[in-house]
Amino acid sequence: MTQYKIPVIPGDGIGPEIVAEGKKVIDAAGEKFGFDVEWVEFPQGADHYLETGELISLDTLKELSSYPVIYLGSIGDPRIAPGVLEKGILLAARFYFDQYVNLRPIKLLEGVWTPVKDKTPKDIDFTVVRENTEDFYIGIGGKAKKGVSKNLLEVERNLYSAKFDLDIETDSEEIAYQIGMISKEGTRRVIKYAFDLALKKKKHVSSVDKANVLSDIYGFWRQEFQDIASGYPEITTDFNYVDAITMWFVKNPEWFDVVVTPNMFGDIITDLGAMIQGGLGLAPGGNINPEGTSMFEPIHGSAPKYKGQNKVNPIATIWAGSLMLEQLGEGEAADAIVAAIEKNILDSKVKTYDMGGTSTTSDVGDDIARIVSSI
Amino acid sequence: MTQYKIPVIPGDGIGPEIVAEGKKVIDAAGEKFGFDVEWVEFPQGADHYLETGELISLDTLKELSSYPVIYLGSIGDPRIAPGVLEKGILLAARFYFDQYVNLRPIKLLEGVWTPVKDKTPKDIDFTVVRENTEDFYIGIGGKAKKGVSKNLLEVERNLYSAKFDLDIETDSEEIAYQIGMISKEGTRRVIKYAFDLALKKKKHVSSVDKANVLSDIYGFWRQEFQDIASGYPEITTDFNYVDAITMWFVKNPEWFDVVVTPNMFGDIITDLGAMIQGGLGLAPGGNINPEGTSMFEPIHGSAPKYKGQNKVNPIATIWAGSLMLEQLGEGEAADAIVAAIEKNILDSKVKTYDMGGTSTTSDVGDDIARIVSSI
Ligand SMILES: CC(C)[C@H](C(=O)O)[C@@H](O)C(=O)O
Ligand SMILES: CC(C)[C@H](C(=O)O)[C@@H](O)C(=O)O
Repeated sequence: MTQYKIPVIPGDGIGPEIVAEGKKVIDAAGEKFGFDVEWVEFPQGADHYLETGELISLDTLKELSSYPVIYLGSIGDPRIAPGVLEKGILLAARFYFDQYVNLRPIKLLEGVWTPVKDKTPKDIDFTVVRENTEDFYIGIGGKAKKGVSKNLLEVERNLYSAKFDLDIETDSEEIAYQIGMISKEGTRRVIKYAFDLALKKKKHVSSVDKANVLSDIYGFWRQEFQDIASGYPEITTDFNYVDAITMWFVKNPEWFDVVVTPNMFGDIITDLGAMIQGGLGLAPGGNINPEGTSMFEPIHGSAPKYKGQNKVNPIATIWAGSLMLEQLGEGEAADAIVAAIEKNILDSKVKTYDMGGTSTTSDVGDDIARIVSSI
Repeated sequence: MTQYKIPVIPGDGIGPEIVAEGKKVIDAAGEKFGFDVEWVEFPQGADHYLETGELISLDTLKELSSYPVIYLGSIGDPRIAPGVLEKGILLAARFYFDQYVNLRPIKLLEGVWTPVKDKTPKDIDFTVVRENTEDFYIGIGGKAKKGVSKNLLEVERNLYSAKFDLDIETDSEEIAYQIGMISKEGTRRVIKYAFDLALKKKKHVSSVDKANVLSDIYGFWRQEFQDIASGYPEITTDFNYVDAITMWFVKNPEWFDVVVTPNMFGDIITDLGAMIQGGLGLAPGGNINPEGTSMFEPIHGSAPKYKGQNKVNPIATIWAGSLMLEQLGEGEAADAIVAAIEKNILDSKVKTYDMGGTSTTSDVGDDIARIVSSI
């Protein structure tokens, strides 16, 4: 019997409730498919932060880096300013473990209601590969007096920022700025990952950028994309401006196979993707470092107002557990979990409120675990 | 009889065809409501650029600045690299004329098909106020060796960019970067515009940001929003992360009244907004400087593949013409044009292909002009 030791960070709000169901289902899959999981709990989150002042320490990160996967609930708490926990724990982990792929399947399961018209499960079935360690997520920015910023930023300016230049020279009004960076290697590795993934799928990769306006950063992205594409002649490609792709997600989701996107645009379009696949309660994500420590989570937040009510949908977290097993090489168990989710949705009345049911979080976990055992 | 002189930039692709219909309808409204327009054509666009090397000159911008409004078709051509024309003409004008409000009504007209389920015209009826002169649109960025960039950017770094720091020190791999800035005054004026607009509507303003990650720039935005909100006690407000708002646009558009957003996020969410109101063929925009020169345009692009086919929908451009008349103080004529658009959609079979019809661009223009005359 294979033995796994998997660290779990249940986190804030509904995190502990949904993670409990995810563990339950994975344990059931283990019994069925011949592996055993020892779960190692980590306390990071709002309470731990308020008690100890610690978000996630370097020691903890180092400890976690000895594991191939981490299972994460959700991070975020209204008692703490926006960003503190998210950046201090979630993004800290993504960056520390260099989880450069954020993998988000956008798949409408049979029997799930989607808010878009005339689309069936065969129309909504693609994968977003979101870059996960660079772009506007690097946390570099600040405030300045305009006069100061001029010296700070020794960069060329276009004609249309002439007006801005003028302001910089003539007053000292306050500004705030933010900087995004992408590296050649960081861009190439995630695009390559997307192309390799497409080889196993419908051999089509769509790139997202805004190269017509943020030309410096995304012109560079486009160039690397084109260079990598030339090494995959069997794969068709297209470029999409981020504004336009939000339209196509709603109108023509069947167009997409693998979508590769810079970090921030990926954040935006995968929430939209979650909506067309039936809502955040159903959307899993994996933060992947193929050679290191990967981390799996529902893409929704900590939903503080539902905390402790045993009410929210655990399916996103259970599905994230399936992605985690896949990463561990337990493909059969991973597939069985997705099949069980589909069977729960199609055949059973055990559903949470967001899917039109009245069952609890743990009812749904029990039901999916039962189906896994009986598959 | 009031006399107006209005500069027109038909631009590229389908621009000339749609602008012709817009002028036709405005002329009809003029006859009816007692004003006369002299149209002054400007040649800016791809052909002019390829012939003369000029995008839009300072002399032209100065000349245009003597007019209160400009009517714009669309800019963009496949013969020219992405961004050159858009930045050199469209954004140049937005910045030069300091058109700090990009006003985009998201309104599902009676009889129009929307791709989202269960929503009627009373559910999809709000306005996006997009900041239009700052943020990541200022055109500041570049490429650098990592080693160089370290000296360039004398800014604080968060824990999670520690890894990035390390790379900067240990190799000289190429990077690309982009900088966004917002100013206190630039942020306050557009937010104030949104609140003043909400006073005339349902008294609800929603702010868009990503303050949990791009904390420097959007924490600043949020703070100014809060400060302005405190001066409007009768208006309700909420904060929306940009990723989440894409979901609510699809699922709960009835929630929104006035949405105020930084430039780049505004670009993204208004395309999605255009889709839920029935598609780009129906989405107008105004680039507004309340004390200066404003510019009105359909929010769609130049659709090069339809150029010269007399096929595309001119309604977005005609509707933009209505916004332009509103700005000139011709409120009655502006309302009549919207009413005529609605009547054309509801009662007449004269529709372009995107609305399920077989009529031409000019048929639709003729029909709407006829309805305006007979109102
Ligand atoms: C919570 C937040 C920092 C995070 C992000 O922006 O990446 C979330 O929205 C996500 O998409 O995983
Ligand atoms: C053409 C492009 C530069 C422009 C923008 O990004 O603002 C367009 O998408 C828009 O929304 O008006």
